[in-house]
Amino acid sequence: MIKTILLNSRPEGKPSVSNFEFKTEDIELTIKEGELLLETEYVSVDPYLRGRMSNAKSYVPPFELNQPVQSGVIAKVSSSKNDNFKEGDYVSGMLSWKTLQVSNGEGLNKVDPSKAPLSAYLGILGMTGLTAYCGLTEIGQPKKGETLVVSGAAGAVGSVVGQIGKILGLRVIGIAGSDEKIELLKSKFGFDAGINYNTTKDMTAAIAEAAPNGVDIYFDNVGGPISDAVLVNINRLARIIVCGAISVYNNTEAPKSLSVQPFLVKNSALMQGFIVSNYAEKFPEAMTQLTSWLAEGKLTYSETIVEGFDNIPQAFIDLFEGKNKGKMVVKI
Amino acid sequence: MIKTILLNSRPEGKPSVSNFEFKTEDIELTIKEGELLLETEYVSVDPYLRGRMSNAKSYVPPFELNQPVQSGVIAKVSSSKNDNFKEGDYVSGMLSWKTLQVSNGEGLNKVDPSKAPLSAYLGILGMTGLTAYCGLTEIGQPKKGETLVVSGAAGAVGSVVGQIGKILGLRVIGIAGSDEKIELLKSKFGFDAGINYNTTKDMTAAIAEAAPNGVDIYFDNVGGPISDAVLVNINRLARIIVCGAISVYNNTEAPKSLSVQPFLVKNSALMQGFIVSNYAEKFPEAMTQLTSWLAEGKLTYSETIVEGFDNIPQAFIDLFEGKNKGKMVVKI
Repeated sequence: MIKTILLNSRPEGKPSVSNFEFKTEDIELTIKEGELLLETEYVSVDPYLRGRMSNAKSYVPPFELNQPVQSGVIAKVSSSKNDNFKEGDYVSGMLSWKTLQVSNGEGLNKVDPSKAPLSAYLGILGMTGLTAYCGLTEIGQPKKGETLVVSGAAGAVGSVVGQIGKILGLRVIGIAGSDEKIELLKSKFGFDAGINYNTTKDMTAAIAEAAPNGVDIYFDNVGGPISDAVLVNINRLARIIVCGAISVYNNTEAPKSLSVQPFLVKNSALMQGFIVSNYAEKFPEAMTQLTSWLAEGKLTYSETIVEGFDNIPQAFIDLFEGKNKGKMVVKI
Repeated sequence: MIKTILLNSRPEGKPSVSNFEFKTEDIELTIKEGELLLETEYVSVDPYLRGRMSNAKSYVPPFELNQPVQSGVIAKVSSSKNDNFKEGDYVSGMLSWKTLQVSNGEGLNKVDPSKAPLSAYLGILGMTGLTAYCGLTEIGQPKKGETLVVSGAAGAVGSVVGQIGKILGLRVIGIAGSDEKIELLKSKFGFDAGINYNTTKDMTAAIAEAAPNGVDIYFDNVGGPISDAVLVNINRLARIIVCGAISVYNNTEAPKSLSVQPFLVKNSALMQGFIVSNYAEKFPEAMTQLTSWLAEGKLTYSETIVEGFDNIPQAFIDLFEGKNKGKMVVKI
């Protein structure tokens, strides 16, 4: 019996479970020469998927209606007619929200469950860690002693960005939405300071206080009013890494923010949007570095593991409520 | 008799003549060893000066109250006790709004009136041309066949940017505020298309129509709603050169615009604020290139020359009404 989750309708604003359709088929999958059969073990849910559910032009084509949703998946090879993979191997790849599926092996990478837990390959040793590493080092060009602000700091990418910032000798300030998260940033991830945007009245003043020398690098996961408050505090030659804008992904009208141009001109500052695949040539270096920091205990991570294939849509929706701490994955 | 213009009060919103004070002194200036006496010939008025009239933190310190305003000036050496300059030389430099002043020669560059009219050294062969050249080439990284949009296109910097864009093989679209200016862009400066923002209802659609392949490079002199409309039309890996934001310089409240973050992420796009002095090491190359294009007739320029020292403040104020075509200078 194979279960599949299809995109049933395009979300207007916040996605809901009714945008998805569950299909159960009682069929037997067979594989041809060169193919392999994959049993899904972990499914990654990520804010960027919201973009693919809309019909707008973006860096990846939108999901088609009545077709399976796809995201990062860790799967076990349950049978193989492909020389590169054998039964029992674990692989990561961009795969469908299905319990069982056939692949030709293209785009799959083997992962080693003896080096790190399987779910880590969707997080700190997967797209999450690569996004944090490449964004901070390539765009941020961090220099020891500088001040880094991270929004969405308790999230999957944010918590890794902050830790890498500390390893590289930066003063690191995290912005997150609950006292519990702020506590976690400081105790678990070693951030120097944290600001709870839900209880702070004057974010601009709070950032100024936490960053007495101004903000040199801003790793922005959220956009919106939080980013406005950071912008006011940037230094000359500041670098703003625009990784995501979760605060506005569900808006149905184009949101307004503080005009950035005067701040950019005044400070000769940079804002650079990116997706991690722009830095593919950096991945080997990044993976080596992340794996070694993880082994040395310099890097740690949080993950929120939801159990059960049927809970994938709700886990995705919960991202927009900030219900995850660190990387959100679904264990099948 | 020496005339001086002082900053009398900081403008709130749009500057007015009453923010300036005229002083006339009947004194004799004498020079010491190493000094020279300068007779002002041309004074440059530029939008960025508005920033220095406010008391806000910026890339250059604010003007002090009751002190002379300073800007780019072309002056004639009327006597010299400095070995680097002799009587009759012409120099350019950041000097006070005074008819006559003493200098120690620091920061002055000799200019050659046989190669170009003196006023050109405040424009196309001065800060204006360097800003256009360095911004477009260093941040814009133009590639033949790409589409460039320029706002404030009939202004001093904008008209040079568009022409350099054409020389480098780009499709060039200019945005300006009157049909007369649009006509000038096309007939005099060789722009491929022009859009009058004062008569165009749907700027987003107009830009999409003028840029059927999308916008690869946006040279932004204005900020505000015009830049919002361009943003919606940018391509993947677009570069936005943030040179100025004249549309919001006089706002007393921080202006709101379309949130840029989602567009930057979606397109892996860059926004970079700059001031020309960041690229000082490029100036010799830029000057050689600009001078040669000018000599070959590939580059032309407009200037609005206002006559009379007393008219400097009004000429400055008129910039914000778009009364200039090309570089605005005052002839003393």
